[in-house]
Amino acid sequence: MHIRDMLADAERTKAPSFSFEYFPPKTAQGVQNLYDRMDRMYNFGPKFIDITWGAGGRIAELTCEMVAQAQAYLGLETCMHLTCTDMGEEKVNNALQRAYKAGCTNILALRGDPPREKEKWEAAEGGFQYARDLVAHIRKLYGDHFDIGVAGYPEGCDDNKDEESLLDHLKEKVDMGASFIVTQMFYDVDNFLRWVKRVREKGITVPIIPGIMPIATYASFLRRANHMNCRIPEEWMAKLEPVKNDDVAVREIGKTLVADMCRKIVDAGIRHLHFYTMNLAQATRMVLEELDWLPSPNRPLKRALPWKQSLGSGRRDEDVRPIFWRNRNKSYITRTQDWDEFPNGRWGDSRSPAFGELDAYGIGLTGSNELNRKKWGEPETVKDIANLFVRYLNQELEYLPWSEAPISSEAELIKDNLIALNNRGLITINSQPAVNGVKSTHPIHGWGPANGYVYQKAYLELLVSPELFPEIKRRIENHPDLTYYGVTKSGNLHTNAPSEGPNAVTWGVFPGKEIVQPTIVESISFLAWKDEAFQLGLEWARCYDADTPSRLLIEEIMNKWYLINIVNNDFHQPNTIFEILTDLSVSDLEKVYTPAQTNGATNGVSEASTVPQ
Amino acid sequence: MHIRDMLADAERTKAPSFSFEYFPPKTAQGVQNLYDRMDRMYNFGPKFIDITWGAGGRIAELTCEMVAQAQAYLGLETCMHLTCTDMGEEKVNNALQRAYKAGCTNILALRGDPPREKEKWEAAEGGFQYARDLVAHIRKLYGDHFDIGVAGYPEGCDDNKDEESLLDHLKEKVDMGASFIVTQMFYDVDNFLRWVKRVREKGITVPIIPGIMPIATYASFLRRANHMNCRIPEEWMAKLEPVKNDDVAVREIGKTLVADMCRKIVDAGIRHLHFYTMNLAQATRMVLEELDWLPSPNRPLKRALPWKQSLGSGRRDEDVRPIFWRNRNKSYITRTQDWDEFPNGRWGDSRSPAFGELDAYGIGLTGSNELNRKKWGEPETVKDIANLFVRYLNQELEYLPWSEAPISSEAELIKDNLIALNNRGLITINSQPAVNGVKSTHPIHGWGPANGYVYQKAYLELLVSPELFPEIKRRIENHPDLTYYGVTKSGNLHTNAPSEGPNAVTWGVFPGKEIVQPTIVESISFLAWKDEAFQLGLEWARCYDADTPSRLLIEEIMNKWYLINIVNNDFHQPNTIFEILTDLSVSDLEKVYTPAQTNGATNGVSEASTVPQ
Repeated sequence: MHIRDMLADAERTKAPSFSFEYFPPKTAQGVQNLYDRMDRMYNFGPKFIDITWGAGGRIAELTCEMVAQAQAYLGLETCMHLTCTDMGEEKVNNALQRAYKAGCTNILALRGDPPREKEKWEAAEGGFQYARDLVAHIRKLYGDHFDIGVAGYPEGCDDNKDEESLLDHLKEKVDMGASFIVTQMFYDVDNFLRWVKRVREKGITVPIIPGIMPIATYASFLRRANHMNCRIPEEWMAKLEPVKNDDVAVREIGKTLVADMCRKIVDAGIRHLHFYTMNLAQATRMVLEELDWLPSPNRPLKRALPWKQSLGSGRRDEDVRPIFWRNRNKSYITRTQDWDEFPNGRWGDSRSPAFGELDAYGIGLTGSNELNRKKWGEPETVKDIANLFVRYLNQELEYLPWSEAPISSEAELIKDNLIALNNRGLITINSQPAVNGVKSTHPIHGWGPANGYVYQKAYLELLVSPELFPEIKRRIENHPDLTYYGVTKSGNLHTNAPSEGPNAVTWGVFPGKEIVQPTIVESISFLAWKDEAFQLGLEWARCYDADTPSRLLIEEIMNKWYLINIVNNDFHQPNTIFEILTDLSVSDLEKVYTPAQTNGATNGVSEASTVPQ
Repeated sequence: MHIRDMLADAERTKAPSFSFEYFPPKTAQGVQNLYDRMDRMYNFGPKFIDITWGAGGRIAELTCEMVAQAQAYLGLETCMHLTCTDMGEEKVNNALQRAYKAGCTNILALRGDPPREKEKWEAAEGGFQYARDLVAHIRKLYGDHFDIGVAGYPEGCDDNKDEESLLDHLKEKVDMGASFIVTQMFYDVDNFLRWVKRVREKGITVPIIPGIMPIATYASFLRRANHMNCRIPEEWMAKLEPVKNDDVAVREIGKTLVADMCRKIVDAGIRHLHFYTMNLAQATRMVLEELDWLPSPNRPLKRALPWKQSLGSGRRDEDVRPIFWRNRNKSYITRTQDWDEFPNGRWGDSRSPAFGELDAYGIGLTGSNELNRKKWGEPETVKDIANLFVRYLNQELEYLPWSEAPISSEAELIKDNLIALNNRGLITINSQPAVNGVKSTHPIHGWGPANGYVYQKAYLELLVSPELFPEIKRRIENHPDLTYYGVTKSGNLHTNAPSEGPNAVTWGVFPGKEIVQPTIVESISFLAWKDEAFQLGLEWARCYDADTPSRLLIEEIMNKWYLINIVNNDFHQPNTIFEILTDLSVSDLEKVYTPAQTNGATNGVSEASTVPQ
């Protein structure tokens, strides 16, 4: 989506909105951490994000990669910065092509800072002299595909303090095809509003987005302001200087000062603000909190679908996915990235037949063995494993091998039931509660356009010991409302599904639309997920040395237990699935594994299970 | 669907089921009347119907045509009879090919009666001698496409009284590939059950369907029994003979006798009965009523979809249609018959772009001008027209130009609202009440598999005078839950639909399935329906002479009024549509048209309408 359209939306609804800026980190671990942070900050509700251009080879490469990741995996509408610095036409074209392929539709065209070793900016050989040339070039190559923004300098530019000439340049950039302006940071609102007036007097009518730099520490506040030649209002210094050695106080006072500044800007009729996050969440979050702009139960984050949409090329219309990857979004996108079309409206025919192989990049367990052992300890019994799942459900653990994000807030509704199951050795991999038609604006279950109703069938996916499986299967098959698939690692599939076709487990009814059914359960994709689920477990096992009880235990579970999913088709009945499992448990929850035992034929936790008849 | 599969279903559920037999009538009017009767008898719930083979040119042709009509338009699973009488191989092949193209999958293969002019049966030149040869031929040509039935003779055959040899022939027919047996009529159950035992002793294991001839009059009862050499139990004669001149008494007693016979058969474990209807409804209906086998609120007619599915070739998977043709099923099937694919799962892409032209066979108003004037009188005012619609809603009128079937039982819920609208000159063409999730077995709204829930958005389609239209449009557009399309004959389209896409107005949620959404509202098909709706009105107008008030009135409405459809997207609110229209009415409901008035520029009923602000 073009930023100009988002701004027009914001203008129409008069609701304040904001965006975040990130830059490419220096280390691989830094990149991974930043992705995690961007994913969390998605929940703050930014309209879009910017990724700055990393001038120079490897770091320019990283900008392109981050844009692609943000679009495809994080579902964040992204604006890629592009500078003239050190960039010949070929490099520019290459960067634009990569942005295009990533599904990115917004570019911020900048001249850029001079590279460190040069004092004055110079065009690269065969490159562009001015940002306006870059704007014209992008328009020439891509027509209206990209929305193009340019920089505005309310307090002057590094190498040009003359406001009049800077405004002339701004006018030229807009005339060349830019459709929005993002300003450098500033703290002097009065000056900013005066500058906006001058911009308008120049006949520039495109939206202006003020760049806001939250205050993290006193030192960084001063350094950045000085670096950008930003005037600091005296009142700010008077409040911040006395507490300069108390970081907490600086952030508290800084948050109020910045929030006040934001309010003044919004009161002046400019409703979209751009935050320079400096790749950190806290200072920005504090300002948004102070402004009361963060999503809340009364103003929930708007979600088009119950899962995070990918904005990668060709995927924008995708609106159906199997539920199995609910907590493994990235892996699902990776394993389906070669599909020609993505399911839209219904699962059915538009789906390519094959899921990508498990050895593809990004599908396995992330993190080093050491890190994983630290996260998940050294479980020696089924009870230990169950405890990890209980901690995850209690939000004391952020990840599990099968969940790459913290537990969702809707699990709260069924948390006690899930914990009880785990405590009895029924390991719950995935679940959703039943929802019988709540408003599409519901703070927890809502998604899609306003004035709609959304529904869910209760879903539970769990690892079940082979001795419990036959009884569970019998009970499900005797119940008219339950359908299930159960399978071992080797692929021995059991089901009572009435057909090969998909079962919609999440759907929504909206004004003027066909029914949207974004989440389904279905056999072929379950088998693809099964491979992944058992593989993740085996990778976890291999974090431990051979013949250790942890490794033996986890391998035993992966090699012998069943992965089963159960749907309660009667979405009026929230607890049926838990009720039929209520008296079942693995009996020897505390059994510790030794090499001798697991080599034996009839050993294992599954040996003695409590199965009431 | 193969009859053997239906019988296996019946066997599994232990529920009694039945089928009806019809023969080709002699006159065109007789054919039309029979189609209407078959359509009504659909509601008795037969599993399938038989059409007997009309030996000889024109009447054989008619059998093929009736099979095609029953499959395509009436949604009745049909078994075509085929005889060897007077049929060379080419004629047989031609008949089979036509059945195949019609989507028919069941054939009853018979030797057939001798043509009237011959006393003894002889094979046609190049034709088949025995039914078994016909069975073998069908299997050879079509493999398993057709399920094949053959005749059984519990009381002997016209030209062969030897039971043993008849049983041998039966065995041969089954060995050649027949998979069910339909018997000739009989009244002696004990003999029938004895015969069944002998059939089984011969090693014949395929299902046996007893043929049941209900009793209409004493004369026809005797004539048919004698013609078929049927033994009549003494008890039957003792009961019927004394009342032989009282048709009502004969039917009453006959119904009980036949129903008792049916019960005995069912008690013996044969659960599917085949009724020789003789193209009449009453006698068969009385027996079914006596048996309590007719659909009732407690045992509703099972419907796969809310509308009658076409079983024509290529249409069996069709499960989405626009609501506009709800009361014009045949016309919809005709206008879409050339589509390559039929919408399945969702409306969208699988639809061919064009609806058939209005001059295609079967789309216009049926019946002669005289008949139509008789049905609908000579309305001279909007009030007169409104009264016709009120009578239709009150079940005092069976058809309207826009409704080829009596009003559905679900209209009862909103009947008073609809009548009130018509009484104010808002002419209601089509409607459905809102349904917020009732069980799929609900006697009125239910459809689809068991253990599901079905939903509807309230829908109303009406003819609106041009003076009322702007106010109605304003009110709808001010309401967050209502979407509409409004159009004049010349195609001036108004809408507030959020997109070009379809709006699902009927949907169902079932175990293990995607959401089924069989009825939609959408712009392109509404424009195709609009042409038809105004055309039907103009054809009605032309039933009256030029310059008569009736013709002038109806032409005025067709030429100037709007056809509008309104959907209330909030299916929790049943009455919103009626509420927003509640104080609107055509003011001059009693105005009579004269040539002078309608030639004037500003005249017409629409001149003075009451539009409160």
